[in-house]
Amino acid sequence: MKPIGRVGILGSGSWATALAKIVLTSQPHINWYVRRSEQVKGFLKLGHNPNYLPAAEFDTDNITFFSESDINSFFRASDTIVLVTPSPYAKSYLKKVRKSSMRDKLIVNAIKGIVPDENMLVSDYLMEEFDVPKELIAVVGGPCHAEEVARHRRSYLTVACKNLKQAEAFAEVLRNDFVNCVTTNDVVGVQYASVLKNIYAIAAGICNGLQYGDNFQSVLISNAIAEMNNFVNAVHLIDREITDSVYLGDLLVTAYSQFSRNRTFGNMIGRGYSVKAAQTEMEMIAEGYFGAKCVREVNARYQVNIPICDMVYEILYEKRDATEAILELSKHFK
Amino acid sequence: MKPIGRVGILGSGSWATALAKIVLTSQPHINWYVRRSEQVKGFLKLGHNPNYLPAAEFDTDNITFFSESDINSFFRASDTIVLVTPSPYAKSYLKKVRKSSMRDKLIVNAIKGIVPDENMLVSDYLMEEFDVPKELIAVVGGPCHAEEVARHRRSYLTVACKNLKQAEAFAEVLRNDFVNCVTTNDVVGVQYASVLKNIYAIAAGICNGLQYGDNFQSVLISNAIAEMNNFVNAVHLIDREITDSVYLGDLLVTAYSQFSRNRTFGNMIGRGYSVKAAQTEMEMIAEGYFGAKCVREVNARYQVNIPICDMVYEILYEKRDATEAILELSKHFK
Repeated sequence: MKPIGRVGILGSGSWATALAKIVLTSQPHINWYVRRSEQVKGFLKLGHNPNYLPAAEFDTDNITFFSESDINSFFRASDTIVLVTPSPYAKSYLKKVRKSSMRDKLIVNAIKGIVPDENMLVSDYLMEEFDVPKELIAVVGGPCHAEEVARHRRSYLTVACKNLKQAEAFAEVLRNDFVNCVTTNDVVGVQYASVLKNIYAIAAGICNGLQYGDNFQSVLISNAIAEMNNFVNAVHLIDREITDSVYLGDLLVTAYSQFSRNRTFGNMIGRGYSVKAAQTEMEMIAEGYFGAKCVREVNARYQVNIPICDMVYEILYEKRDATEAILELSKHFK
Repeated sequence: MKPIGRVGILGSGSWATALAKIVLTSQPHINWYVRRSEQVKGFLKLGHNPNYLPAAEFDTDNITFFSESDINSFFRASDTIVLVTPSPYAKSYLKKVRKSSMRDKLIVNAIKGIVPDENMLVSDYLMEEFDVPKELIAVVGGPCHAEEVARHRRSYLTVACKNLKQAEAFAEVLRNDFVNCVTTNDVVGVQYASVLKNIYAIAAGICNGLQYGDNFQSVLISNAIAEMNNFVNAVHLIDREITDSVYLGDLLVTAYSQFSRNRTFGNMIGRGYSVKAAQTEMEMIAEGYFGAKCVREVNARYQVNIPICDMVYEILYEKRDATEAILELSKHFK
């Protein structure tokens, strides 16, 4: 097992900021790669992330920032690196990283999504492109709004690693007065769950936009978690309880949240916005939009029956009529 | 299999009113027992239930009302009787019914609760007290807000009966443009699920009242559905999917709804109201309050590990401090 050592956070969105805040409750110091040096300047001046989660205040004496072309220095200066960029940008960050910079590091994936174009889980991408051994890859999952972390509301995370002792070591970094953390060896299932839940949150938003009510929402989510279970079992069959918070809990917090950008995006689609218009108006990327395409392509290999994901894909990418699609889907719910 | 024949509705709350509305979309005429003759008068005058669900309008020509002491006439005039009173009152209704009045009827239980004092499922009570054979007992469950039914929003029900053909026959009565209906033989599980979800909704309300956020709520619900699964498996082990909408969906719609009286009741307890003060202010019975006691007593036989139900019981009946209780419980969530 590798000791945790110095933790580095790669990414500067709201979830990255929340994780940095959590890590700093157990660690005296972190490294933090924030791509744009302007953002670092703002950070140092304000004592919080100038762009996201301003409620989370930091003592910047405890942070060594890296930015712009310093990404390899950032890796070398860190023993454990937490990847927490939006999934569409993960590759553009990682392609600047040399294989040697990742050597002998514990890489913790907190990116909720698949690597675009490659249609690979981040863990598979790390193994294939960077020769990271699987026992040095961990994943952070679980239901966790960044906003609630900033306000110290009790939250639950799950750390997955093939090596359960390694998972436990990193879980210990995340535990504090307001964060509980459990461990699992389901590296694959946890990552797919975090991709699928965004797609289901879009579906929930679409139904909401079409004026379906709470009854229907509850049935949609019930069917979605059963669909998730089928998919992860087909891709990686292990003895898992799909009702664990890292699967069901994360789906619930995303699909029921009024603040979820995936749900909001779906809602706009349901109300008749085009994909482009919804994206423009939101000024934010709904990760499920990319997730729907990735899962579609991954599932070409597995051929699992995933009608909710299929429907979201067809509405977003093939201009299928949402009203008709939901009506058809709803006939098969139980 | 018994033909459905004339359907009679016993009860006059909002769920009874919603079910009457649903049944009348497939049946030309129903019998309806409304205890107080004053309420029948109001109904005939207004064309809707004077006390509940005024949005559901009825053509009263299609309804034969019974009230006061006419309960045995009501049974004799009906072939299929839907029991849909609040569970605490079920016994006071049924003890006026003669065993002979129930003979050869299909009895459909839509009461969400256990028979108080007896701590028996309604189905067991019907078998024991009235000699109703189990193949003539059906149960209606599933996520369904009465308010959404009144507004014709798509909803899902489940009919359970040991005789699946009988379940299917009654399901056909409930199906229409806005109600989907599936069947199962899990008579016991469906009834316990409908009792347990009210207790979990109280727990969700307590947490909300104590300022726990969405993250925590999602973890609570994930652990609650796992607990429900353990309980129903211990009481009645069959091959069931706890993610089906009649179990998980019903829990979700109740625990997430701002309108759920169980959640509202829990919320007041979380905010520091005494049980008595909360009940007085609400002017309504939160069924989970009785459910928590019944499940506690039933579980004395089964000794299943149900920490969420235990906690709700202890807060409501033993004045356990809610803040401390939730904190203790939260340590064991996963």
